[in-house]
Amino acid sequence: MQTNPLLQKLTFLHEIDRLKSVIRQSPLLDRSRKENSAEHSWHLAMYALLLQDYATVPVDANRVIKMLLLHDIVEVDVGDTPLHSSASPEDQYHAEIQAAARLFGLLPEPESSELLALWKEFEEAQTEDAKFAKALDRVQPLLVNVITGGGTWNDNGVSLELVLQRYGPTIQRGSPILWQLCEQLVQKHFGPNQ
Amino acid sequence: MQTNPLLQKLTFLHEIDRLKSVIRQSPLLDRSRKENSAEHSWHLAMYALLLQDYATVPVDANRVIKMLLLHDIVEVDVGDTPLHSSASPEDQYHAEIQAAARLFGLLPEPESSELLALWKEFEEAQTEDAKFAKALDRVQPLLVNVITGGGTWNDNGVSLELVLQRYGPTIQRGSPILWQLCEQLVQKHFGPNQ
Repeated sequence: MQTNPLLQKLTFLHEIDRLKSVIRQSPLLDRSRKENSAEHSWHLAMYALLLQDYATVPVDANRVIKMLLLHDIVEVDVGDTPLHSSASPEDQYHAEIQAAARLFGLLPEPESSELLALWKEFEEAQTEDAKFAKALDRVQPLLVNVITGGGTWNDNGVSLELVLQRYGPTIQRGSPILWQLCEQLVQKHFGPNQ
Repeated sequence: MQTNPLLQKLTFLHEIDRLKSVIRQSPLLDRSRKENSAEHSWHLAMYALLLQDYATVPVDANRVIKMLLLHDIVEVDVGDTPLHSSASPEDQYHAEIQAAARLFGLLPEPESSELLALWKEFEEAQTEDAKFAKALDRVQPLLVNVITGGGTWNDNGVSLELVLQRYGPTIQRGSPILWQLCEQLVQKHFGPNQ
């Protein structure tokens, strides 16, 4: 096992290259292909950089950015679990905990414990930073679906009611202003007859 | 023109989705395809998060991360210019300045000026944060080339001498420790007879 801290960090940085091959359900905005989890993480970090002032309470944008950069890294081992899937949340969380232990375990201390703690903080969504990060992780795919004329909602036969239920509470909790806008866009997307 | 700051920010965030379709010369580590500039930016932000202690002098990692998240955004308009290309640096910089003005100009103030300034700081590479960010932007593709058995160096017939010349000064300036390791890897890659 590698014990040189620099080489341990490079091993981790090489390992997470595989996040570029984890394919999400959401398309790119030009619909040319589906998005991968690495570029999704970049985009969310840019969302945090620009939308930090819309959080429910003031957040530490630098922490939110870091959280979003690494929030999907466990998918290197377990793949992406779509929001509109029937996977058991308990099984999924158990698998992700194991993946987090393996992946962040490649790092030396203190980074190993620090990044694992930041990932857990995101997953548990109890802090204001994590609540805002979770909200952005719902806002971005919602906007993709609206802009692309339905996206994953069409693919999965998701109704207005389900959209409000699956996205609303998480976005509302982290950013009432963003939810107000998202709800308007969603209502308009589904039209007056739904 | 949009004057609501939130909608201006969302317009910008939608516009930069196109960075996911800007293809670089470097392959993924598994060689399955070439890397795009959005996932490259994510990876570099992770490099900054983990390698900050190896900068020549202490840097503000949060600023370096932000700089790397947006350092390639101009490519939405002008595309990627490979390191081993014959493009005129002056023409390229002129086109990138125009792209930066258009893209960051989509944002409201103060974000418009702040992000443009951060992008210019990276390009000019005069501050310690920018020098370290530039070094990482060379380290990552160098390591990709070593790991993939040559990568863009093979594609472009790049010699050991050219590698040392094109990567060395920029990496050495931002991080002597990283250059020391990179130089060893490069020497080993090209072998004793070159």
